[in-house]
Amino acid sequence: MNKEINFLTAELSRLIGQSKVIADLEERKKYGSDHTEDFCFPPTVVVKPESTEDVSVVMKWANQHEIPVIPIGARTGLSGGILATKGGIGLSLERLNKIIHIDENNLQVITEPGVITEILQNAVAEKGLFYPVDPSSKGSCFIGGNVAENAGGARAVKYGVTKDYVLNLEVVLPNGEIIWTGANTLKNATGYNLTQLMVGSEGTLGVITKIVLKLIPQKQYTNLLLVPFYYMDEATSAVAEIFKAGIVPSAMEFMEIEAINWTAKFMDIPDLNLPENTEALLLIEIDGNNTEVMFSEAEKLMQILENFTIGEIMFAETEEHKSAFWKMRRNIAEAVKTFSVYKEEDTVVPRYELTRLLKGVKEIGAKYGFNSICYGHAGDGNLHINIIKENMPDEQWKNVVPKGVKEIFELTVSLGGTLSGEHGIGWVQRNFMPIAFNKVQLQLMKGIKTLFDPKNIMNPGKIFPDNN
Amino acid sequence: MNKEINFLTAELSRLIGQSKVIADLEERKKYGSDHTEDFCFPPTVVVKPESTEDVSVVMKWANQHEIPVIPIGARTGLSGGILATKGGIGLSLERLNKIIHIDENNLQVITEPGVITEILQNAVAEKGLFYPVDPSSKGSCFIGGNVAENAGGARAVKYGVTKDYVLNLEVVLPNGEIIWTGANTLKNATGYNLTQLMVGSEGTLGVITKIVLKLIPQKQYTNLLLVPFYYMDEATSAVAEIFKAGIVPSAMEFMEIEAINWTAKFMDIPDLNLPENTEALLLIEIDGNNTEVMFSEAEKLMQILENFTIGEIMFAETEEHKSAFWKMRRNIAEAVKTFSVYKEEDTVVPRYELTRLLKGVKEIGAKYGFNSICYGHAGDGNLHINIIKENMPDEQWKNVVPKGVKEIFELTVSLGGTLSGEHGIGWVQRNFMPIAFNKVQLQLMKGIKTLFDPKNIMNPGKIFPDNN
Repeated sequence: MNKEINFLTAELSRLIGQSKVIADLEERKKYGSDHTEDFCFPPTVVVKPESTEDVSVVMKWANQHEIPVIPIGARTGLSGGILATKGGIGLSLERLNKIIHIDENNLQVITEPGVITEILQNAVAEKGLFYPVDPSSKGSCFIGGNVAENAGGARAVKYGVTKDYVLNLEVVLPNGEIIWTGANTLKNATGYNLTQLMVGSEGTLGVITKIVLKLIPQKQYTNLLLVPFYYMDEATSAVAEIFKAGIVPSAMEFMEIEAINWTAKFMDIPDLNLPENTEALLLIEIDGNNTEVMFSEAEKLMQILENFTIGEIMFAETEEHKSAFWKMRRNIAEAVKTFSVYKEEDTVVPRYELTRLLKGVKEIGAKYGFNSICYGHAGDGNLHINIIKENMPDEQWKNVVPKGVKEIFELTVSLGGTLSGEHGIGWVQRNFMPIAFNKVQLQLMKGIKTLFDPKNIMNPGKIFPDNN
Repeated sequence: MNKEINFLTAELSRLIGQSKVIADLEERKKYGSDHTEDFCFPPTVVVKPESTEDVSVVMKWANQHEIPVIPIGARTGLSGGILATKGGIGLSLERLNKIIHIDENNLQVITEPGVITEILQNAVAEKGLFYPVDPSSKGSCFIGGNVAENAGGARAVKYGVTKDYVLNLEVVLPNGEIIWTGANTLKNATGYNLTQLMVGSEGTLGVITKIVLKLIPQKQYTNLLLVPFYYMDEATSAVAEIFKAGIVPSAMEFMEIEAINWTAKFMDIPDLNLPENTEALLLIEIDGNNTEVMFSEAEKLMQILENFTIGEIMFAETEEHKSAFWKMRRNIAEAVKTFSVYKEEDTVVPRYELTRLLKGVKEIGAKYGFNSICYGHAGDGNLHINIIKENMPDEQWKNVVPKGVKEIFELTVSLGGTLSGEHGIGWVQRNFMPIAFNKVQLQLMKGIKTLFDPKNIMNPGKIFPDNN
């Protein structure tokens, strides 16, 4: 191992400079973990390129020597996409952190991948522009990681996910070649869509080094409502009814009561005075530029909600109040993590099927003896299921729980859904892929992988099941 | 030739039934043309499958015998995508014309490919739902063709293009295997995006047999304005200014005055009383559910327009008036075609660059001695350039004009744009592909083609340059 570390360190230092190559164990450990359970697989060496050319030089050399390369963003991923399960070079994009150009004439931004999503959002907001995709980790995740995983977030229900904003990408291919995938245009019917093939490819096809994103005009106002439901299934039914009525909220978040309870143990949350029987809550945001219109939408919304058994609707009256509600929602996963190791599943179904999915998850949990905390982007049918380890014996965690997870995915697919809405497959979900795809589909995907990366050096061992 | 026709007819009749196989020359000629110039390349035989299974049987057999198959929609294409330039089986999807299910619970529709786009739009509108993508040919084109070409249209500027609505596709692969490309979900981070790889692949990777589309709630009202500009470049500058001001019209169409003049020769158009110096017009639509908001947007719009040298703004007061304006816009290409053979280029640039593109097109036309009529979806930076043959000698049309076209594309790409915004590359633009893509990019695309279609039977000779 040490010999390999020394060889990689020496060669890579020679190629791109010593200051960009790190072999220290503590540092490597840091780059061996993301937010997925408690896994840690350190890369053999970490490199921190400072330009596309650096990336190209590293890739070309690694390809010649058939050494795995794992592109690393801010390590906030939830599917273990950056775990160096086969060792190799951890290629951190953190120094490619410049916003290159905010193009106010064309409502676009060109950025490097290592920019924190929220910093990018704030920078374009200063020009009156809006990049709406906001993963819960927006304060720490990188825009490059968002592209690699096709990240979503709360506002996807109205504004779409990362893929809907990516116009063009600069990519370093495994052999070191640098390409652009498309053009900086809103429309493009010129050859195959390489851009959308890269989005969500989880670092398995190439390294994203520049990103061109579409922007839209900033919205001026938001209303935020928190609605307590006495029955969990009514909360998910309400979601479908709201859309059927023609209302498109800018966020529509579901939280079962346990998610709030765990979060309250972790941090100060607003005093909610929830009715005792509350089973679940919906956090609903409406945005716009005209307060009257938004008010009438909110009224229409409340008419629909009155058909369900709900407690008093809470309006966030101030910006502080709004951000407290959002902070509560965004911190669920971290709160759960503080108290227990957990597996997070990222199921997604057509949204009307949420009720059936949720009911099934609870039944499967009972059958296999695990508790789950469910919450997520109900407007998109995207349910995050945190399966809690707590005091469960390792044996059960390792051998029994995965059977339940398999059943959850089978249920999801049978409802017209699929394995991941926004977290990607990465390492932890790879062996569930055959539930969503048959051999023919997997072979096509594997064929694409081989086409881009014939030596299988780009983030190997991810997405595809072990025996594929 | 006759022997081949007889062989194909007999074998295919045996496989899927005689009533689905047509060898008649007149009929074959009909299926050998779309709306691209005056080309006609009849397939050796036409088949009209009535189910996915029929398509699968035909593909499997054709693959075994290495016979080209050209998927054919409504033959309204503008890049020659359905021309059977290498003969083979013309596979018309016209009998796969059922809307399978309008899912009001999930705001989705599942449809077969042979449904006319406008019929689909009307069917979902009856349920209060909206499929916004409206190519000019919406009254005759098929939704399957729209997916294959990633069609756009006037409303793309606000609502996006076909790709933004396709959630999932059933596809028959060249070897006859039937797959779905994804799931019926709004979000999907599960493996590579095969769905978006199929969208816009122009019938070269497989046959689309079922389509799942996202729908949105119907908008209630539209305002429509026609604005005459004294200077063409001011019309294109105004487009960028309007977006910079935060207004997102539901359509923003540019027409140079010649386009209107030719259309007026072809059909009755509303009496426009245009100022004599009018060089170009913008047709601007604003939609919404609140007339007051729309009125205030229109006012803001007019404030911006006042900064330019314009004639009196015309408001379409009635539904008839609106549809007369739209009919005028939609019929430009057909009007031009009535009077002359023409080449239609489908250039697209970042929208602020439209002024430079337009100026360049006119200069290149002067240099190579051709007239052009320019119009298109200015909000997307998508400029249709109709190059008119009229009395030009064939020699010049065949050998000189393409040099000018090449220069137009070089200019387009130098402005950050690309060859086609919404018509596809098809047959007529294939040899311009190296202007937009280098060898590495083309090899990746070609590799994808070979992966899906190793025997190159799916619509061969399209998209890729001859020497690639």
